[in-house]
Amino acid sequence: MKGTLYGIGVGPGDPELITLKAVKAIGECDIIAAPDAGTDKFTALDIAKEYLQGKPLLPLELPMTRDAQELLKKRETAAGLICRQLDMGKSVGYLTLGDPTVYSTYTYLHKLVAHSGYAAKIIPGVTSFCAAAAALGQPLCESGEPLHIIPALYGGVEDALALPGTKVLMKSGKRLKEALAIIKEKNLSASIAERVGLPGERLVQELVTHEQMQETCDAGYFCIVIARDQTDG
Amino acid sequence: MKGTLYGIGVGPGDPELITLKAVKAIGECDIIAAPDAGTDKFTALDIAKEYLQGKPLLPLELPMTRDAQELLKKRETAAGLICRQLDMGKSVGYLTLGDPTVYSTYTYLHKLVAHSGYAAKIIPGVTSFCAAAAALGQPLCESGEPLHIIPALYGGVEDALALPGTKVLMKSGKRLKEALAIIKEKNLSASIAERVGLPGERLVQELVTHEQMQETCDAGYFCIVIARDQTDG
Repeated sequence: MKGTLYGIGVGPGDPELITLKAVKAIGECDIIAAPDAGTDKFTALDIAKEYLQGKPLLPLELPMTRDAQELLKKRETAAGLICRQLDMGKSVGYLTLGDPTVYSTYTYLHKLVAHSGYAAKIIPGVTSFCAAAAALGQPLCESGEPLHIIPALYGGVEDALALPGTKVLMKSGKRLKEALAIIKEKNLSASIAERVGLPGERLVQELVTHEQMQETCDAGYFCIVIARDQTDG
Repeated sequence: MKGTLYGIGVGPGDPELITLKAVKAIGECDIIAAPDAGTDKFTALDIAKEYLQGKPLLPLELPMTRDAQELLKKRETAAGLICRQLDMGKSVGYLTLGDPTVYSTYTYLHKLVAHSGYAAKIIPGVTSFCAAAAALGQPLCESGEPLHIIPALYGGVEDALALPGTKVLMKSGKRLKEALAIIKEKNLSASIAERVGLPGERLVQELVTHEQMQETCDAGYFCIVIARDQTDG
């Protein structure tokens, strides 16, 4: 009998923000897979390390590149490595930061593996933006407010920041400075959460000073900006 | 010493989709509070019932009404009841379905209690839309795609469905039929997840037939629609 692939969300960083279901699935898997992106190595593995119980690891080379050809090739190779284990009757748990359906490499592997006829299941996790709002003690959205999650590195930030409701900027990267300038120009309220639940956590409740902006502009991949109109408390 | 209020997300429905942190916080609280909305009574309490260990319950009357005056009054009464316990040195765990920062009554209570000078902390949870995408085996968003969460009952659905990226319709209520008609008119791809992880779960991968639409139009409060352009697989 063939094994099952589990896409397991380990949550945003704090090892206690993993679900009981994720811990149980890790326990039931024969092999643990995780992306090796070259940077911030194996963060998902680090978060879940208490629950791995010495299981064999399958690191998968999945670089953060925007070269479509390279991405496809790497993903197919990774999916092939997973399927080889499934063929041997081994269940594979692919660990992913946050939730597997939100900007995760997992969904590409899920499609490749599921389309090849294997069983693949997703175990949801706490997203980084929910953890950011919780750490800041702020609502993400209330009653009739829409919530927009914007991968800022890919552009369209100016239009996105004009939308009604709450705007969450993720994956800002090199465009963070530009995004903060637009936020200032539009006189929006903005809070920042960086590396929530990870070493080096930093929270800025209301981004106002030039110094805060400069510091934030040096922020890394795990920086989340929550912006909204300056209306209520 | 005064107690602390914890806003605890218990996740979307499956009792195993609660986090270790939420279970620990419930264990450390003296009193468990939850909204009594009159309908689908105490769902958050039902989800967490295994972890409550016979702790005293504080039901709070928080009806789902759009009467602003009534809402404010009920919230102030509920916050007052919580603060009375905090004054006696009791820690209160307010349980909320999904995540406390996403369309939850908790954030109003959080503000009222925190502004009165009490300690209040939020423990994030898995959202219903992440659980819906996981159950459907679909990504919510990949690479540069924005993700829009739309509380459809409050209008603006037509504009929202014209946005780029993935559109998640929540809280559609009586507007679900109208929303599905717009989805059809715009020739969007749409999947439905109803009561994920709760009794009566129903998943529709691609909403195509008239019958599916009719059935879905009878769906209740816990119905989530994931819509996107008909482009890729």
